[in-house]
Amino acid sequence: MSDYQRPIRVGMVGGGRDAFIGAVHRMAASLDGSMCLVAGALSSTPERSLASARDLGLDEERSYSSWEEMITKEASRPANDRIEAVVIVTPNHVHFAVAKAALEAGFHVICDKPLVMNEAEADELVAIQARTGLVFAVTYNYTGYPMIKQARHLVRNGAIGTVRKIIVEYNQGWLATPLEKTGQKQADWRTDPSRAGMGGAMGDIGSHAENLVAYVTGLGITEFSSDVTTHVEGRALDDDASVLLRFENGARGILTASQICTGCQNDLRLRVWGTAGGLAWHQESPNRLVQNSIDGPEQIHHRADGSLCDASLAGTRLPGGHPEAFIEAFANIYRSAASAIRAGRDDGEAFDYPTVRDGARGVKFISAVVSNSGTGWSLFQEGV
Amino acid sequence: MSDYQRPIRVGMVGGGRDAFIGAVHRMAASLDGSMCLVAGALSSTPERSLASARDLGLDEERSYSSWEEMITKEASRPANDRIEAVVIVTPNHVHFAVAKAALEAGFHVICDKPLVMNEAEADELVAIQARTGLVFAVTYNYTGYPMIKQARHLVRNGAIGTVRKIIVEYNQGWLATPLEKTGQKQADWRTDPSRAGMGGAMGDIGSHAENLVAYVTGLGITEFSSDVTTHVEGRALDDDASVLLRFENGARGILTASQICTGCQNDLRLRVWGTAGGLAWHQESPNRLVQNSIDGPEQIHHRADGSLCDASLAGTRLPGGHPEAFIEAFANIYRSAASAIRAGRDDGEAFDYPTVRDGARGVKFISAVVSNSGTGWSLFQEGV
Amino acid sequence: MSDYQRPIRVGMVGGGRDAFIGAVHRMAASLDGSMCLVAGALSSTPERSLASARDLGLDEERSYSSWEEMITKEASRPANDRIEAVVIVTPNHVHFAVAKAALEAGFHVICDKPLVMNEAEADELVAIQARTGLVFAVTYNYTGYPMIKQARHLVRNGAIGTVRKIIVEYNQGWLATPLEKTGQKQADWRTDPSRAGMGGAMGDIGSHAENLVAYVTGLGITEFSSDVTTHVEGRALDDDASVLLRFENGARGILTASQICTGCQNDLRLRVWGTAGGLAWHQESPNRLVQNSIDGPEQIHHRADGSLCDASLAGTRLPGGHPEAFIEAFANIYRSAASAIRAGRDDGEAFDYPTVRDGARGVKFISAVVSNSGTGWSLFQEGV
Amino acid sequence: MSDYQRPIRVGMVGGGRDAFIGAVHRMAASLDGSMCLVAGALSSTPERSLASARDLGLDEERSYSSWEEMITKEASRPANDRIEAVVIVTPNHVHFAVAKAALEAGFHVICDKPLVMNEAEADELVAIQARTGLVFAVTYNYTGYPMIKQARHLVRNGAIGTVRKIIVEYNQGWLATPLEKTGQKQADWRTDPSRAGMGGAMGDIGSHAENLVAYVTGLGITEFSSDVTTHVEGRALDDDASVLLRFENGARGILTASQICTGCQNDLRLRVWGTAGGLAWHQESPNRLVQNSIDGPEQIHHRADGSLCDASLAGTRLPGGHPEAFIEAFANIYRSAASAIRAGRDDGEAFDYPTVRDGARGVKFISAVVSNSGTGWSLFQEGV
Repeated sequence: MSDYQRPIRVGMVGGGRDAFIGAVHRMAASLDGSMCLVAGALSSTPERSLASARDLGLDEERSYSSWEEMITKEASRPANDRIEAVVIVTPNHVHFAVAKAALEAGFHVICDKPLVMNEAEADELVAIQARTGLVFAVTYNYTGYPMIKQARHLVRNGAIGTVRKIIVEYNQGWLATPLEKTGQKQADWRTDPSRAGMGGAMGDIGSHAENLVAYVTGLGITEFSSDVTTHVEGRALDDDASVLLRFENGARGILTASQICTGCQNDLRLRVWGTAGGLAWHQESPNRLVQNSIDGPEQIHHRADGSLCDASLAGTRLPGGHPEAFIEAFANIYRSAASAIRAGRDDGEAFDYPTVRDGARGVKFISAVVSNSGTGWSLFQEGV
Repeated sequence: MSDYQRPIRVGMVGGGRDAFIGAVHRMAASLDGSMCLVAGALSSTPERSLASARDLGLDEERSYSSWEEMITKEASRPANDRIEAVVIVTPNHVHFAVAKAALEAGFHVICDKPLVMNEAEADELVAIQARTGLVFAVTYNYTGYPMIKQARHLVRNGAIGTVRKIIVEYNQGWLATPLEKTGQKQADWRTDPSRAGMGGAMGDIGSHAENLVAYVTGLGITEFSSDVTTHVEGRALDDDASVLLRFENGARGILTASQICTGCQNDLRLRVWGTAGGLAWHQESPNRLVQNSIDGPEQIHHRADGSLCDASLAGTRLPGGHPEAFIEAFANIYRSAASAIRAGRDDGEAFDYPTVRDGARGVKFISAVVSNSGTGWSLFQEGV
Repeated sequence: MSDYQRPIRVGMVGGGRDAFIGAVHRMAASLDGSMCLVAGALSSTPERSLASARDLGLDEERSYSSWEEMITKEASRPANDRIEAVVIVTPNHVHFAVAKAALEAGFHVICDKPLVMNEAEADELVAIQARTGLVFAVTYNYTGYPMIKQARHLVRNGAIGTVRKIIVEYNQGWLATPLEKTGQKQADWRTDPSRAGMGGAMGDIGSHAENLVAYVTGLGITEFSSDVTTHVEGRALDDDASVLLRFENGARGILTASQICTGCQNDLRLRVWGTAGGLAWHQESPNRLVQNSIDGPEQIHHRADGSLCDASLAGTRLPGGHPEAFIEAFANIYRSAASAIRAGRDDGEAFDYPTVRDGARGVKFISAVVSNSGTGWSLFQEGV
Repeated sequence: MSDYQRPIRVGMVGGGRDAFIGAVHRMAASLDGSMCLVAGALSSTPERSLASARDLGLDEERSYSSWEEMITKEASRPANDRIEAVVIVTPNHVHFAVAKAALEAGFHVICDKPLVMNEAEADELVAIQARTGLVFAVTYNYTGYPMIKQARHLVRNGAIGTVRKIIVEYNQGWLATPLEKTGQKQADWRTDPSRAGMGGAMGDIGSHAENLVAYVTGLGITEFSSDVTTHVEGRALDDDASVLLRFENGARGILTASQICTGCQNDLRLRVWGTAGGLAWHQESPNRLVQNSIDGPEQIHHRADGSLCDASLAGTRLPGGHPEAFIEAFANIYRSAASAIRAGRDDGEAFDYPTVRDGARGVKFISAVVSNSGTGWSLFQEGV
């Protein structure tokens, strides 16, 4: 008997020249051979799409000039030859239409975050997914890290007792200056409400922070008080957000997401304290998880330690001390989504990937935090 | 010419057997010979006071059975023999009466933090100090660290540009369980409103956090939204507080102070980001200061580096790599206060120590944060 | 014009089920699409080879029962369809015969380290490579790390002045117990002289340490005094080695390689000090490079910083703070080797990969250090 | 009953203006009130001695113009008024004569390291101490760190099994340039054989490294191969030394001491690995001790943890997270020596301080390592 798993055939929307995240998705898909790029509508113009397709060695016949064309033409190919899933790596404003059309054409979807532009779109996608039953994975990639899976395991199994305090931070500095005015493509669309949505830093990275807390603790946010700010003059969206959180079990929390923390790179940190212990994880040193207890020494768990939980070890490729990092974590999402697609079952819990429902909750959280900024305490009623 | 500086003669109130902070004050006073303990009312009963005095080799004649007696009798001694200053290291509820009496008897004061129990007492002490002109130092000891002085220097001189974001954290875990019910003395009074005041974690360590921000940045807090919580059942004061801050220049901040962060010891951290760079400092690794800029490598300044500012170097005793720590920082406050006393001038700016006005602002901040917890945004109108 | 680079078609020898490094090679080859596995003789028996081939989805027709068969049959395929290179990931004793046959059949070679079993084999491979002119890359993968490339750049460009002292350590703990007696496959062959060669820890990881120093500094070792030890009873090869080094320019060094450092994982560290500064790098935190100077703060360079050298940036896929790690560094070797193969030119300097000559020098170093252990100072006459 | 311990009355030789270590000794002596400076011959000229005495507020009558005068005149004072011990903080060449005279006059001795200039002096002091029975403490101050005491406890109690490998490093960079030519006093005498002895870096800091290994492991060195080098042109003593070590139980080790590691400050590190685990300690982060085991997470012990050994806790003044550092460790030596003096018993094991025998072994180690540099393996026959 063989362990071989056929790569899922995918078509990509976005991710052409100058894009950042498209290349990450491709590396993540190919690292383990989870998915295989066979079609694409890689840019917003036919010329650039074709050039990008050539860069990737994509069959020119399956380099489409628009995502609509890709979905239509791929759907007309024989079942064993057409794409099975659509990967959406465009700016946010395109996510909804592509995802909706893909699902309705019978394709599974892998979509970048934040899921969509607003709550109505989020609800509609959740409904369509529920109707079609197709697999829908949202690439909250930080949940793919093995030590985050271990943190989830420890929290869910009571290793730190009842959770009382959560601090999640996502500090970046790359938008400390008006980079969008220089034509830098990543800054350009992320600071444009028509393409990014209502959240700037809050949408781009605050959504990761919210998701990380939900993934690890499973605790629903019930109330919050937020302060969402634009520090760089002339910028249309927030570049800094701080939020006090209250959770369903009485735990308290702080979430901060900022892109004006000069000198910070991708400084995502999670700390969770419970009645019996605490955990700390830092994305820039992702192979370590710090665990504290009431007594006894601090403990540092390392990726691939024999003592780690199954989900953590399943997301591990190399022995301890041979560091894995961002792409490997991202590849874990792809591997999980591919397993779900092979099984024909959208089950984020069983296959361990973020679902359209996680994405929808994220959109609602962004919306609530931004809309109620500076007004004091507000309720938030979306469970995890 | 000699560099010799005569030690200031002091009498201590509190700090007897089982006390923690009294011994710290004594080591801080003696490390550089800044002050010399010659009298004391070290405990709340005459017997314990005497026993404590004997532990310290104090002249039994000058071991008094009450602080009132100490002030009265010392004041009647010849000027060149009596104490010059009173050091107050009792639980908080005793600070006000002793400080007031000491000032009125003509003694300088070194008082632990938080200054007093409420705003009225704070205002009264500020007024008495102003009237008497005596030196009044509040031992916000973390401002004594050389690398905090360097951080202050860098911020005040524009090295990180205009400040935009501040995160100050003070995470402890020692009160994660109801330690006060075991008879542990430190926990006992700190969780008792009649002795600690209105703030638990917020008063004990949140006050340090507020002071550290003020010392380094000089920015006044104008608005806040706080969430002050008691997690341990039956506890009368908060053990966890989170606060969103807005500063006079538009900067935003987060302050958190907690004593239920299981496994944390004395995890005080300050991060400040401006338009041109960022700074990070951690009390448990106090000899380092991290500085980031928009471009270029991260920089780690080490205590005693020749490039540091005068105030930082003045607070340094040993060459780089020979670590200094908590007691040395505390001793810096004592050395500065001793200089002010020798000069007969209460000038925290010139001599570099926290004043009664810093202490009063701290009390008002604690009061405001605790009183308005959970109510959304409130104004705060005490400048730095 | 397209950026597309066709993957090089390769056949792999070794790397079947239970192997460790074969999977790493495959991930490294596929991450960037540098090379494409189309043939294999993956295990030492035909049955296991076939099972392994099926695991990988390899065309069964090109899953060969022996490496001899693979080389013969692939050589008989049309030029545009046959493999272009042979990847050798077997235990060490097989390297020589496969590499020799591959070169003689006109195939390029990518071979794991240490290159071969002894100096004679090393010299012969160097000669054959020189005669055929085919590309021969040895996967000293740690030189693929971007921050090692930056260290090399800084040293070679005088940023730390003239090198005076080098400490390279490779501390592992996985062989602290007689793991080979449990049947663990990796331990089994690495402690067997007939398969591993004359070096145990010295061969397996000491060779990496030697190579890292050579790559970064370019300094030839001229003398050494070594102490090569077996701590675990009954083990036939060394599990711990310490070596004093003298370099051609007068610099002094220490190299240690050990597999009995209980609790260490893959703790490879390099420190280099020169007249004007110092550098420190740690494989388990590979995205950082510490630089010190005589005055001024410590500097931490981060992967992808705009200030880094071209070679470092060329080996970088993700923005700063999005960590890259072991597989990405390994993939850099593959990418460089693929470029050399496309160019048809074996030039490790130009394309930035370790050559057969680096591999041969490594074998001679292992041999010299092991043979002269405990005898005091010996000359070493292989230049870099 | 009182805990009070009367300070031991001491006279100091050396430590005047411009000295470094004298001030450290004074702070260490006064921090806990262990000893009290009442007399001194603080500099090499009467004028400077007097000026220095005035800086310290020393009674001018007991500021002597020479150490000979101090010993003579103090010996003639009434027993309950004269000094009890002589503290020797001069350059090395003065240690022997002062220590000898002090012992012969009936005074206890606290002497800085290295003990003396050569083996003959070392043997003579050991003999005199043995004859007089007076307390003789050598300030190998790094053994005063609480986490070093814990490391010793763990090793001695088998927590890491049988020791197999030891790496001790002492890297400094302050002599990377010919600082002694600038008139810098510390560099001046430390690079002068007539005042420093036969070892430069090896004597100044290599001696600490040797002592740290002996204190923690108790293992005697039996053989070594050393490479002792002078990198800075014109310097008369070594500024860099690397030594391979073999221990009595078969363990292997590396010791390096260097003052040309540009950018290093006081980078003393000790790592010890045994059959069951490993320990790592770094002087610049002295409150932590890392412990590894074969399985299970890495453990970080923190100073003052309730789980630490008695000796570690006895050397601790502050709660966890309130860092202690260099002076506190130094003060622990003073406190121990004071206890021995009060008890009138020279017992380094019982009172936990380094003895004249430790100092003598250190001198012999320096001598052997320097004399045999570059000659290969030599025997070393001084037990611990």
